[in-house]
Amino acid sequence: MRAAVFHDAKDVRVEDVAEPDAVGPHEVRLKPYWCGICGTDLHEYAVGPIVIPTSPHPLNGSTAPQILGHEFSGEVLEVGAEVTSVRVGDRVSVMPLLFCGACYFCRRGLNHLCTSMACVGLSDAWGGIAEQCVVPESKVAKLPDSMSDIQGALVEPTAVAAYGVDRAGVRPGDTVLVTGLGPIGALASLYAASLGATVFMSEVNPKRQELARSLDVGELLDPRSTDVAAELRDRTGGIGVDAVIECSGNEIALQTALAAVRASGNISQTGLHTRPAAIDPMVLSERDITLRGTWCYPVTDWPRIIDLIGRGRMDVEKVVSARIDMADIVERGFETLLSPTGDQVKVLVRAE
Amino acid sequence: MRAAVFHDAKDVRVEDVAEPDAVGPHEVRLKPYWCGICGTDLHEYAVGPIVIPTSPHPLNGSTAPQILGHEFSGEVLEVGAEVTSVRVGDRVSVMPLLFCGACYFCRRGLNHLCTSMACVGLSDAWGGIAEQCVVPESKVAKLPDSMSDIQGALVEPTAVAAYGVDRAGVRPGDTVLVTGLGPIGALASLYAASLGATVFMSEVNPKRQELARSLDVGELLDPRSTDVAAELRDRTGGIGVDAVIECSGNEIALQTALAAVRASGNISQTGLHTRPAAIDPMVLSERDITLRGTWCYPVTDWPRIIDLIGRGRMDVEKVVSARIDMADIVERGFETLLSPTGDQVKVLVRAE
Repeated sequence: MRAAVFHDAKDVRVEDVAEPDAVGPHEVRLKPYWCGICGTDLHEYAVGPIVIPTSPHPLNGSTAPQILGHEFSGEVLEVGAEVTSVRVGDRVSVMPLLFCGACYFCRRGLNHLCTSMACVGLSDAWGGIAEQCVVPESKVAKLPDSMSDIQGALVEPTAVAAYGVDRAGVRPGDTVLVTGLGPIGALASLYAASLGATVFMSEVNPKRQELARSLDVGELLDPRSTDVAAELRDRTGGIGVDAVIECSGNEIALQTALAAVRASGNISQTGLHTRPAAIDPMVLSERDITLRGTWCYPVTDWPRIIDLIGRGRMDVEKVVSARIDMADIVERGFETLLSPTGDQVKVLVRAE
Repeated sequence: MRAAVFHDAKDVRVEDVAEPDAVGPHEVRLKPYWCGICGTDLHEYAVGPIVIPTSPHPLNGSTAPQILGHEFSGEVLEVGAEVTSVRVGDRVSVMPLLFCGACYFCRRGLNHLCTSMACVGLSDAWGGIAEQCVVPESKVAKLPDSMSDIQGALVEPTAVAAYGVDRAGVRPGDTVLVTGLGPIGALASLYAASLGATVFMSEVNPKRQELARSLDVGELLDPRSTDVAAELRDRTGGIGVDAVIECSGNEIALQTALAAVRASGNISQTGLHTRPAAIDPMVLSERDITLRGTWCYPVTDWPRIIDLIGRGRMDVEKVVSARIDMADIVERGFETLLSPTGDQVKVLVRAE
């Protein structure tokens, strides 16, 4: 079968690999439909291997070369003898995190922090950008008829964004600033709006500004021409916003977050920073601010996110900026996403 | 009457001031017993006025010169016509925060973040280091017979420390690191132990190390000879501690906190930093860490803290390193506390 395989930095090949063997009793064989390219995939392509193991992974023995793809929907081709929750022909979304179930964190329900966590498409025998993929039954959730195959591929980044917003304790009636309108920032804006918050968005890139406006869930502020924190304090009677979802991974955005949030408010650090940032801890103290990192999502969030999208509460397809074929993954996928103009937001790869 | 009055930096005078007039219907006249010198008082003495207003305070018109003292106990000398909760002769502890009751934060129960907050002994006509003091009835809480006058003066810093620990969500069975064993760090250690946590303490100053050991609530680690974060990971099977209460206001301590706390753990920034600090937001993200500032305390916490001390659950008097007379406040109080050897921890001033 054809698959997009990571061999090394700048060396992703679309090539023939062996199909999965017959599935185990608790496994499901899938035909992936669509699969998103994630920031993590991009980092692996640009400067990896980082997450992709180069020696056998402690959880499952997986090692590079690695079939890519962990944001995907697909059709059930075959089910193991003990599988009861899905049938051949069902359309599903895949929760790609693999965890041990026995470590300190797993025993406390924090499976996304498993000390030997692996991930389909990053540290597993299989991935979503391939003609076939095998995953445990527990990782697939059936899509309702109301959801498209593309929406099914967007459940994973939506879960990331939702967790970012949830960690900031956002409630109906709150005013929220989202900094950085990449895919996660855009999905966070949609999610915050879906739960009844007033949303402001901050973004410098013109293409992403266009996306932000198209979401139609709040007002866009341009930090090149507006002092975002001062403007939001003005709009809130001098108080500041209830929460900031920092999705850019940028030091200035984090400092803006600290200046824009109200006393006793919450900042969720959802974007990944690649270098240290200077903050003023006195601001945290004297204004009782909470700054909270967010990593992945609770693994139990899939049914809820599917329900939210399936009931039409979030128009997640708006974050898709390109749909490409597997054969084009390097040129129209990774290389375009690495372009400094940042024209692409979420690129989906047709896995078939 | 005699009072310790702030005129300017390095200019605190013990002098005669007019006694309070007859009290209003909802006010109480007190004879202060003991009053602690707080870090805020020390900052005012060293480089103030900072918090002490030099023009009329928006809440109450108060302005320097200012009678000092906001951590105090006292005896009721006179009550206003409408006062019902205390009587002449009662021993009380004073909750010194004054707030408007009408602003954004007060309407949400966050009175300690009142946009025009004032404080007895910092921005009010009266203070606790004086022979008499007048406060609203709502600011006094009766001390049980089981509590000493000195314990009554320690309710305020205990409330600060308790809020720091509470903001980190510490629960029985948790393992907690307290960094910086000044008065707040010492009280935070006592409070964390009182609720059933296993406490580790980190402190470099030999005198404060002595205090830490004398608390008898946990193990002291010396960051000059021990890699505190590595040691605590070792002690916790590689996981890290559930919470860190950062009470030193020191950049290295904050970085230690980030390295020592477990994934999904909480850091409470309780000590006040005087300059920006470099942190790695990626650590916050990839380990789902919460970093939370803490400011003062919920104004409703007084009865609970009094109950806790009154029932003998926290031996708060251990943090007292000196008891001095009002006349000695500059030499034996401020100047000794400013000494770089850090020999003093909590200095109590006899107000009578």
